[in-house]
Amino acid sequence: MKLLKVDTVNEARSRLMECCGLMMPQTEMRGLLDAAGCILAEDIYSKENIPPYRRSIMDGYAVRSKDLGAAGDMIPTMLKVTGEVLLGTDSSGLKVEPGCCIYVPTGGYVPDGADSVVMVEYCEPFVSGMLAVSKSVSPGENVVQAGEDITEGGILLCKGRKLRPQDIGVLAATGITEIPVFVPWKVTVISTGDELVSPDQTPGRGQIRDINTYTIAARSMAEGFKLIRTIAVRDDREALKEALETAKSDSDLVVISGGSSQGKKDMTAELIDEAADHGVLTHGIAAKPGKPTITGFDEKSRTLLIGLPGHPAAALMVYEQILISLWRSITCCEKERTVRVIIDANVPSAPGRMTFQLVKLSGGDKPEAYPVFARSGMISPVSEADGYFIMTENQEGIRAGDMVDVHLWK
Amino acid sequence: MKLLKVDTVNEARSRLMECCGLMMPQTEMRGLLDAAGCILAEDIYSKENIPPYRRSIMDGYAVRSKDLGAAGDMIPTMLKVTGEVLLGTDSSGLKVEPGCCIYVPTGGYVPDGADSVVMVEYCEPFVSGMLAVSKSVSPGENVVQAGEDITEGGILLCKGRKLRPQDIGVLAATGITEIPVFVPWKVTVISTGDELVSPDQTPGRGQIRDINTYTIAARSMAEGFKLIRTIAVRDDREALKEALETAKSDSDLVVISGGSSQGKKDMTAELIDEAADHGVLTHGIAAKPGKPTITGFDEKSRTLLIGLPGHPAAALMVYEQILISLWRSITCCEKERTVRVIIDANVPSAPGRMTFQLVKLSGGDKPEAYPVFARSGMISPVSEADGYFIMTENQEGIRAGDMVDVHLWK
Repeated sequence: MKLLKVDTVNEARSRLMECCGLMMPQTEMRGLLDAAGCILAEDIYSKENIPPYRRSIMDGYAVRSKDLGAAGDMIPTMLKVTGEVLLGTDSSGLKVEPGCCIYVPTGGYVPDGADSVVMVEYCEPFVSGMLAVSKSVSPGENVVQAGEDITEGGILLCKGRKLRPQDIGVLAATGITEIPVFVPWKVTVISTGDELVSPDQTPGRGQIRDINTYTIAARSMAEGFKLIRTIAVRDDREALKEALETAKSDSDLVVISGGSSQGKKDMTAELIDEAADHGVLTHGIAAKPGKPTITGFDEKSRTLLIGLPGHPAAALMVYEQILISLWRSITCCEKERTVRVIIDANVPSAPGRMTFQLVKLSGGDKPEAYPVFARSGMISPVSEADGYFIMTENQEGIRAGDMVDVHLWK
Repeated sequence: MKLLKVDTVNEARSRLMECCGLMMPQTEMRGLLDAAGCILAEDIYSKENIPPYRRSIMDGYAVRSKDLGAAGDMIPTMLKVTGEVLLGTDSSGLKVEPGCCIYVPTGGYVPDGADSVVMVEYCEPFVSGMLAVSKSVSPGENVVQAGEDITEGGILLCKGRKLRPQDIGVLAATGITEIPVFVPWKVTVISTGDELVSPDQTPGRGQIRDINTYTIAARSMAEGFKLIRTIAVRDDREALKEALETAKSDSDLVVISGGSSQGKKDMTAELIDEAADHGVLTHGIAAKPGKPTITGFDEKSRTLLIGLPGHPAAALMVYEQILISLWRSITCCEKERTVRVIIDANVPSAPGRMTFQLVKLSGGDKPEAYPVFARSGMISPVSEADGYFIMTENQEGIRAGDMVDVHLWK
């Protein structure tokens, strides 16, 4: 096993990113509603103009604007009603001749000859088939031009877009019902530690319930990953090795979550080194909290192998900053939006290390936040916090009143 | 059918809210990972102290701090090593006597007698079983006290919390594995309109593909609702009536999405009035866009019946502001966080109406946004936008440079 120095967070990311060139996520075609929330795997162009023909945005009469001249309340203009557009039927044979008009409902086809629509509220029909119009219109008024919403050949959505409801709407509008999306990572979470018991058990003296398996599994699911399984194993080399082999067979990402004591982490590092044909890539990152992080890559099975720190806050922040950030990079997905707030207390950084600081947003009107401190192993401050901000390796802490960019928890 | 005046958005919300007293969502117990993303239906208290015993946050030696006095590099203090705490085993029989110390790994039980832990880095073991300690410690140093993370009887999570990964972690830590959550609404989306064809069809002249069914269904799913079905019906009274009856039999919420022309909306209103034993509650809201919104409530089947405007932007914003806002109110769920930004252009409001204005956030470092204008029926501006802000009924528009609170799209 190579001995590696502690990496910065960016170095750890880069080492994984290089390997990920070898494991680009697969893509698949999904139907409209199945694609919602997935990440688009290709740029999508429209093959059509939307609307395909000129549409009225009002219930009204299609007219030639110059026929109305200076029509107004006092001097209405009389037009002859020569037809009616019915929604859902082909009205392309209709034409508005000079001095005439045709009724058009909202969303209806605007017949040839007309250049605008006058709202029904300004129109008074007479039995004779004539219409008194008491308002003039500009050319194009109340009409959406063909292709004004979406132009044929134009780009609809870019690769990497996490598909929101209205994006699904745009795809529906243009008749694109099979959508290429990235297949979400399949994830196995292995927890290890003789002191760990499952949450439904009462821990004996010296024991503690497993937390990280559940936070990491839930965080994975929130990102859209598919949780294949969780496995709990004792601190037993053979059992852990077997669990790793099982996980490698069907997962893209194997997360090993365990205690954080030195002896244990050595075993995780050794096992990852054995299981990964590229070996351990990073053994320890310059992060606070989060140092005991191990990464590896197995090219044969195309699996990322990650040992997370035991501290629940660290495990979650490292998982986001290293793994979820990697997933978003390789899928070209937009980064999660951060929220800029004023921090209301001095916060020290850890020199030479990237510092993740939990914060809670203040309830008030102003964008303010205060730091939440989690001692090692604590979970309740992580739940109390709304998110965290990052101080870089060279940053000498934050002063009360400074602005920080908060990564909000999912 | 009663004739109702146009309601403000708040009036429409209140009328629905009153009825919802009669249809509080049901609750159910879910396992830890199945509860992730759901809304907690009760306050949850801890039945235990976490940690249940004093734990070390370091690999080190449990000591009596006064034994170390002014121990330092130059003059180490010698202590006798009398034992070792093993993770996962009962170490409660161990005790640190004066002049002695016991090895404790990270997360391990801190034995009686000791009041602190000195990091292993400051300790030099001798073959004689003695330990040279080159640093003094304060009482409590490197020790998490019993109950310091979570106190027995203390509140863990409040009703209405949308359970995030770390909340699942807090529940796991305290052994709460069956969690009471609100059963998400079951939703049927009915689209109606002779001009509508399904997205996989090529619309003929006068036809258009159905958009709103897909945006509303996807938005419902993003909120955690269960989509029971989508039904497409022609503008046929009997067919629509039958679809409504089917939907009422198994859905909490029935959304009718269709064209927005006056004639059609009248049919929707009449049918909702017939199908709902409380009748139509709101027929038209003072919103721009979004006026042709209809709400009703059927007490017998405990179903909300909603007719949404046809304009895709309006349908989505009204659905969020009326229905999803209602769901969050009755489940005590926190409102979606808004983002405060500077708007870079003047935006007019519609006097007397609540105005929903689409915006796109600027890419830059500053929290800025610009308005996106969607003409009636357009979908691409809705997809281009990152969200929208609201101008109230009495607000006279926004000036460039004003701050607005943006509701970000899901």
